[in-house]
Amino acid sequence: MGGDHGPSVVIPACATALKDLPNARLLVHGDEAALKTEMARHPALAARAEIRPAERVIAMDEKPAQAMRRGKGTSMWNAVEAVRDGTALAAVSAGNTGALWAISRLILRMTADLDRPALVASMPHARGITTFLDVGANVDCDAAQLVEFAIMGEAYHRAAHGVARPTVGLLNVGSEDMKGHEEVREAHRILRQGAIDLDYKGFVEGDDITGGAVDVVVTDGFTGNIALKAMEGAARFMFGELRNALSDGPLTNLGALLARPSLRRFRDRISPPPAAPLLGLNGLVLKCHGGADERDFAKAIRAAADIAQSGFASEIERNMRRLPAALAPVSPAPADGAA
Amino acid sequence: MGGDHGPSVVIPACATALKDLPNARLLVHGDEAALKTEMARHPALAARAEIRPAERVIAMDEKPAQAMRRGKGTSMWNAVEAVRDGTALAAVSAGNTGALWAISRLILRMTADLDRPALVASMPHARGITTFLDVGANVDCDAAQLVEFAIMGEAYHRAAHGVARPTVGLLNVGSEDMKGHEEVREAHRILRQGAIDLDYKGFVEGDDITGGAVDVVVTDGFTGNIALKAMEGAARFMFGELRNALSDGPLTNLGALLARPSLRRFRDRISPPPAAPLLGLNGLVLKCHGGADERDFAKAIRAAADIAQSGFASEIERNMRRLPAALAPVSPAPADGAA
Repeated sequence: MGGDHGPSVVIPACATALKDLPNARLLVHGDEAALKTEMARHPALAARAEIRPAERVIAMDEKPAQAMRRGKGTSMWNAVEAVRDGTALAAVSAGNTGALWAISRLILRMTADLDRPALVASMPHARGITTFLDVGANVDCDAAQLVEFAIMGEAYHRAAHGVARPTVGLLNVGSEDMKGHEEVREAHRILRQGAIDLDYKGFVEGDDITGGAVDVVVTDGFTGNIALKAMEGAARFMFGELRNALSDGPLTNLGALLARPSLRRFRDRISPPPAAPLLGLNGLVLKCHGGADERDFAKAIRAAADIAQSGFASEIERNMRRLPAALAPVSPAPADGAA
Repeated sequence: MGGDHGPSVVIPACATALKDLPNARLLVHGDEAALKTEMARHPALAARAEIRPAERVIAMDEKPAQAMRRGKGTSMWNAVEAVRDGTALAAVSAGNTGALWAISRLILRMTADLDRPALVASMPHARGITTFLDVGANVDCDAAQLVEFAIMGEAYHRAAHGVARPTVGLLNVGSEDMKGHEEVREAHRILRQGAIDLDYKGFVEGDDITGGAVDVVVTDGFTGNIALKAMEGAARFMFGELRNALSDGPLTNLGALLARPSLRRFRDRISPPPAAPLLGLNGLVLKCHGGADERDFAKAIRAAADIAQSGFASEIERNMRRLPAALAPVSPAPADGAA
């Protein structure tokens, strides 16, 4: 039911995604009448997708705290609950990010002693993929959380991309130790001490996200969300300008026609991913961006299937189990209420 | 002397820039021997550029406070002093950003009752230019500073682009009132009250920087610097991929050849600016990015000449004079030491 377009985009996307996923089945949570109407237009979908009626939805502007209190029985709640109960391997939503974050944390709980889930984006660069987090789940982050993001991102990158020992960088406005605000400098000190076993390379800058300097780029959710959207916007602007540039005369038109297949591959290659997993939970939840169209949401479903099959969950969990000891000096009272 | 390459890039850039600026003259501050050696390779430059010997330089990693204390007599200090004394209309540096910020503020002082200078970038979008600030001068910003940036950015946009009443947006992770951290929500409240006379449109998101939703996008220097560099990096990555895509076969090669002039115009059109003015000072100082090559630094010199001729200084000053009253409820003790 989520996102700017709801079932009119989600249902066609389900039909598209299933074409590439011969063994997958879908549970579609939401308003039964609305979903049935849309599904009637995709007969092949009916055999492999099951409607799970939910009478209520979480509004796009609902506050996370409110969504948690009153969320039970909504389509979002039920989708996440299906992951907890093992009836689904992953949940995908284009709905309210804050609500999805809060409901997932409440229902699935965090792995190990981690504090809060992070949203992770996979950014393309010339020689591979950069794991970039947090891209919007946690607006205010202290040093301990940045360190947690480093740990989660490193484990995710290893699981998702098969890199034995991913390198990690902390996003800052310069590479010198004295740069940045207090939280980022404190996280830098902790990561450099070496008590946490990962290949920390120090500060990186904004252009390193698509520059491939390190495998994992860590930042707070405010900066990460804005940087991600700024890059998406820049890519969209460039495509628009490229389209204009390639249609400004007969010779250019001919050139563009000849280069079209390459330009298409180029577009697919550089497009930022439409969905981001929420990291650190006991279960897989993906957030698809709210403005997603059919193509984006189908990609998000395929990404969920890929990650669910990659065994990343156990990899993350295995890595996370080593953490409480390493994090102890960072957050002296990790146990809820123990302080 | 500044930047990653020093005189070996700056001097050739001076020669290049002067070709397009028939009436400009340059003062080149720095190590006399090093500058003379480089200038000997550009005979045409000697007639229109004067070396101002400075025995010391500010190191790229020097702390701003240290640079202020020990900066007197350095090339950076002398360049800014020449602006104060009226011997130069503008100073351009590719050196240490924090030091340039601190030295400029010390020597030139702020206009009106403004607190701290902001670095402003001019980002292209499909129908014009977005004024984007702060892109790195102020890492920690409270609500009052964000409001000041809105005022400075609006005045700059009017002066630089002749827009009678520029629209202003505050960068955030969503458009709803409850989104973001405390500083950005407080600035939002102040700007919405209407006590400050500008056309405030509310929160905008990262993709609006190149989307043209508003004329002026305001954020803190940490987020702004990272978003700017992220967009630069994304553009660089896209160019590299486009180059690869357009050389992957004979037909594509031919197409790329036919489209080449358009692709060149495209590249020039979308390239982010290599230099950013420091806003709010009694005088014009431009920061060129440290990794600037000859082409970038020449562009920065031309930008300085353009802005110096645009009469933006008096426009800014005129707008700033209206501010103390409007800002009073934001910062109750604006006068130094009065509290």
